[in-house]
Amino acid sequence: MIGIFDSGIGGMTVARAVEQLLPEYSIVYLGDIARTPYGSKSPATITDYSLRNTEFLLEKGAEIIIIACNSASSVATEALRREFQTPIIEVITPAAEKAIATTKNGRIGVIGTRATIRSGVYDQTICDRQPEFKVFSAACPLLVPLVEEGWINKQETKMILRRYLHPLKDRQIDTLVLGCTHYPLLKGLIQARIGKRVNLIDSSVETAKYVRELLTAQPELVHRDENGATTHRYYVSDLTDSAQMVAAKIFERPLELLLT
Amino acid sequence: MIGIFDSGIGGMTVARAVEQLLPEYSIVYLGDIARTPYGSKSPATITDYSLRNTEFLLEKGAEIIIIACNSASSVATEALRREFQTPIIEVITPAAEKAIATTKNGRIGVIGTRATIRSGVYDQTICDRQPEFKVFSAACPLLVPLVEEGWINKQETKMILRRYLHPLKDRQIDTLVLGCTHYPLLKGLIQARIGKRVNLIDSSVETAKYVRELLTAQPELVHRDENGATTHRYYVSDLTDSAQMVAAKIFERPLELLLT
Repeated sequence: MIGIFDSGIGGMTVARAVEQLLPEYSIVYLGDIARTPYGSKSPATITDYSLRNTEFLLEKGAEIIIIACNSASSVATEALRREFQTPIIEVITPAAEKAIATTKNGRIGVIGTRATIRSGVYDQTICDRQPEFKVFSAACPLLVPLVEEGWINKQETKMILRRYLHPLKDRQIDTLVLGCTHYPLLKGLIQARIGKRVNLIDSSVETAKYVRELLTAQPELVHRDENGATTHRYYVSDLTDSAQMVAAKIFERPLELLLT
Repeated sequence: MIGIFDSGIGGMTVARAVEQLLPEYSIVYLGDIARTPYGSKSPATITDYSLRNTEFLLEKGAEIIIIACNSASSVATEALRREFQTPIIEVITPAAEKAIATTKNGRIGVIGTRATIRSGVYDQTICDRQPEFKVFSAACPLLVPLVEEGWINKQETKMILRRYLHPLKDRQIDTLVLGCTHYPLLKGLIQARIGKRVNLIDSSVETAKYVRELLTAQPELVHRDENGATTHRYYVSDLTDSAQMVAAKIFERPLELLLT
């Protein structure tokens, strides 16, 4: 069983991609809606919550853990790997490697929460591999509340995006990492504002692809449920109408959310 | 000692008013930044957090508790009064009574978080006292994140306010309750958008006045610290730069925040 957690519902974009790319695996998901959002909180608090979320998923039978949250991946991955023997997958490396493989001019933009951008983890991951590349990043803290409100196509969201993306517009980037699992829901608006020629990298899809490669190479890591015997359970630490709404939008079907 | 809690830093507008109106009393404050915001979460979760916050303040020596958060006041007051002997003060009644005393035409607007507006507590409190009055309310869930980002005077905030206040503009209200302790920071923008002739009721100031009346009538409730011997302690469950910034803005001085 594949365990996935996020601060809330954004990580469901990862779960959805895992469902599609790895249909023979069961999923247990935890969205920590009671303490959402993580991206404006301190590294110590985000790490504490990530440890507790991982314990919950392990108790439910998870054999690997995907941290489907860029903020938690940025600040809590090392602590989780120290604490648990279970393989811990984060969303940063798959997105960073895809960006490196995609860029032609070596100029990469990254947008994310304040916690993700402040950690500098994308800059470090990219520059460790390609020291001559330039990374330009921008924190976009209001995008998560806007997505959670369902303000996906509102004029105000467009204006706020324009303000956030403005410093990246002059940098001649040809690739932009959507460094938050909520942002795929704003993909169209972001593409329109940053320009058609900029490649958008979706950390959710890249992480699902990375897990597929991992399980092809090491199939013994996770038990497979053949012949349609998979079960997917979506837990949340708080149950709200807007969570139900955004979850249904992500999965394009009504999703039963289970209260922890 | 007066105990005050909020989901975060908005309740500091209440603490600031208490400092000014009741200079002879010590204050212990708890801002639950690690789990902020409350206003989009469920009543059960908000109540659970409110119980724990109250326990914390009582351990620190609080003799009365002010719930300096409209969301928690709306859904958790009864549970706190059942659980604790200590007097529990909420912010709804003082604001509702001031609105009743202020309106000339009996048409009152209320803005607040989703939790506050959905609870219907302002409608009920006003209509219990004045059944012929009309209450018109609007949930404004993005205002808290905007204030916490310090976007106090940005064009996008003005547009979002215009959208939220639009349904109230046609209602001929002459009084508008700022039913969230973050909103006093947006007072100027709200006044400009709702019109000069509408009276704004600040739940923070009204609550501080109510506590002053209570302690005048029942001085035995809280120990006084005469001759400048008061101590004010401001605790937070998470420490972030933006919390420091907004706290300094509210108090017009740098404020030492203590991590719980």
